[in-house]
Amino acid sequence: MSTNAGASIRPIAIIGGTGPAGLGLGLRWARAGETIIIGSRDKSRAQKAAAAIQQRVAGCNISGMENSEACAAADILMLTVPFDGQAALLKHLKPAIVPGSILIDATVPLAAAVGGRASRPLGVWQGSAAQQAAELAPQEVSVVAAFHNISADLLQGDAPLDCDVIVCSDDPDAAQLTRELAGKIPGVRAIDGGKLENARIVEQITALLIGLNIRHKGHAGIRITGLPPAAYR
Amino acid sequence: MSTNAGASIRPIAIIGGTGPAGLGLGLRWARAGETIIIGSRDKSRAQKAAAAIQQRVAGCNISGMENSEACAAADILMLTVPFDGQAALLKHLKPAIVPGSILIDATVPLAAAVGGRASRPLGVWQGSAAQQAAELAPQEVSVVAAFHNISADLLQGDAPLDCDVIVCSDDPDAAQLTRELAGKIPGVRAIDGGKLENARIVEQITALLIGLNIRHKGHAGIRITGLPPAAYR
Repeated sequence: MSTNAGASIRPIAIIGGTGPAGLGLGLRWARAGETIIIGSRDKSRAQKAAAAIQQRVAGCNISGMENSEACAAADILMLTVPFDGQAALLKHLKPAIVPGSILIDATVPLAAAVGGRASRPLGVWQGSAAQQAAELAPQEVSVVAAFHNISADLLQGDAPLDCDVIVCSDDPDAAQLTRELAGKIPGVRAIDGGKLENARIVEQITALLIGLNIRHKGHAGIRITGLPPAAYR
Repeated sequence: MSTNAGASIRPIAIIGGTGPAGLGLGLRWARAGETIIIGSRDKSRAQKAAAAIQQRVAGCNISGMENSEACAAADILMLTVPFDGQAALLKHLKPAIVPGSILIDATVPLAAAVGGRASRPLGVWQGSAAQQAAELAPQEVSVVAAFHNISADLLQGDAPLDCDVIVCSDDPDAAQLTRELAGKIPGVRAIDGGKLENARIVEQITALLIGLNIRHKGHAGIRITGLPPAAYR
């Protein structure tokens, strides 16, 4: 699909975008006609990842850049890094982030970051990885927590997903834009999960899903049932 | 339905069974042919609740007793009390609990217990309300965490549910029996959620669902997607 209908005119920089979640989101949004910048510490790795997506999505707008360069070139930033790299990366990127940017954080504080199990969350002093991101990001940046509970493996495939994305933020406009981006992934429904502080629960759900994946050999996601249709958008 | 086909021969005592979740589980299991004892601090309240279910489920096996009496008469105990009453109640019931009983705990540590919001969880020193229950229950009792994320309002209705019940326990047999009980509620799938320690995530999901209910005016539940069919039982 190379159509740009309904696409955001703002490029999306996927920081740490050469990991499975970043690649999957990049692929899906490239298919939806968004302009994507894959960011990586290593520019050539970013460019290779972008080229691989380009091969799968003819005519899409995608490029690869070093993370800081990607930040400077976009005002929607999607952060998909392991928890053990999140704080240092945000400190490093701070000068490059454009004031007024939206930072969408998908970081999950898993005990794997300290040699423990990926099925166990770590406690974060600020309450959640997303709240840590909000503390470390420049003040003029709106932080949104989203995309924690979506299978990176399934995102990288071609089939529609079967899961919901719970979006938490203290900035309603940034949250709405993020819900719109989530809704561009086939099969995904976005749900307003309220304030950023609720990310602490949404992040932990990922640890539970990882445990289910290990136990049952699957690619678990969640659907929220029992809400009126207007809640999904 | 008064058929007893496939029903457990063991009675289920629902401790704190006159609250919305207890009444709903009692109704659904009575319909499935289980023998139910509604427990309450106040015996006459328990008997009234049992009579109300009897009215809706002709020929069912249900009675009402004081909580300790209910414990002594059953070896499957379903605990459905607010968090602020859980510890004191378990200490009070300890002498009445039959060795070898299964204690299914649905307690959710919500900040509402200390005058805060029902959409915010409390930290529990043991990790979860279920682990607190395991610490307080007699040693010969198997504790299972389950039924946290199921709408009490919908349970009290007649329509099939649309949600999954994640079951966590360190005792595989007790967990399996609990999954079978969950599967007797129309529309519910039970999922093995692993060890009891995982209850800390499952309990917190309830706070998130309560927030969604407040925000979107619904009766939220969760479905786990992406697992093979054998995972649901």
